[in-house]
Amino acid sequence: MDFLYLVKKRHSVRNYLTDEIEKEKLEYIFECARHAPSAANFQPWHFYIARSEEAKKAVFESYPRRWMENAPLYIVACGNIDKSWKRGYDRKDYVDVDIAIAFEHICLAAEEQGLGTCWIAHFDPAIIIENLELPSNMVPIAITPLGYPGEEMGERTQRKNAEDIIEFL
Amino acid sequence: MDFLYLVKKRHSVRNYLTDEIEKEKLEYIFECARHAPSAANFQPWHFYIARSEEAKKAVFESYPRRWMENAPLYIVACGNIDKSWKRGYDRKDYVDVDIAIAFEHICLAAEEQGLGTCWIAHFDPAIIIENLELPSNMVPIAITPLGYPGEEMGERTQRKNAEDIIEFL
Repeated sequence: MDFLYLVKKRHSVRNYLTDEIEKEKLEYIFECARHAPSAANFQPWHFYIARSEEAKKAVFESYPRRWMENAPLYIVACGNIDKSWKRGYDRKDYVDVDIAIAFEHICLAAEEQGLGTCWIAHFDPAIIIENLELPSNMVPIAITPLGYPGEEMGERTQRKNAEDIIEFL
Repeated sequence: MDFLYLVKKRHSVRNYLTDEIEKEKLEYIFECARHAPSAANFQPWHFYIARSEEAKKAVFESYPRRWMENAPLYIVACGNIDKSWKRGYDRKDYVDVDIAIAFEHICLAAEEQGLGTCWIAHFDPAIIIENLELPSNMVPIAITPLGYPGEEMGERTQRKNAEDIIEFL
């Protein structure tokens, strides 16, 4: 499939089957994440895969939505701020950018493999930090369930027009 | 091509031909950016395409590298912090995340179309803001040249092993 097709096909899945994910598919998805670019190639990412009931509960508490429960696993993407690149001019930390790139690779790779994801930013960071006992240099940036999608729920979201977001100079 | 192949094929291009980019390819690339997901679907991105000599010079001054000069255009991706989503728990602004997703769509779409890009974070933000007269709500987050790649220069970068970045819970 061409890239635009994949991009348009990806959407937030909020209905999951309980079916397990094949090991090969999970490995493929993380190969796509692993090869993401990052500022100065510092690769400041760390991915927690919550599979056990206990770990899933720990993640779920930071974003307790019933539709999350069926998914066989959750991914928590963290940025290691001891390893991320900071721009000299203004000390801006590119950790959010780097983790976002790798995480979107996960979402697109999953879609290609017939699996669903949902970018979640609206979790309670304090709960994730406490429940997963994250070290002080590890910032949770995004969470997603991963699993086979059930029947599609709700409408697809719309996008702004090209002329409203692009300006030629 | 499958997604992993595309991800591995994408790399930082630091040698460009002066050839113009076909209008259809540019439109395709921005269709891929436009359909990116964003927090709460707020789409806080704004893309400046510097094509004129004057605009290119304005961008170049923020990151003056000789290898940039041949590329027929530069893209400056900005985040509109008046329109970006902030998490209630801690007021974290997801603008960097959102712009990074759309920008990586640009880089992957360009690669698919046989065009080169290079994620640049190490520009001087004060110079870009001044030279492009960016409004106060517009934060420049990433820049790339866009153009047909010349002969490949330098080595491909390496990545960490999967076991060093993934942890099962």
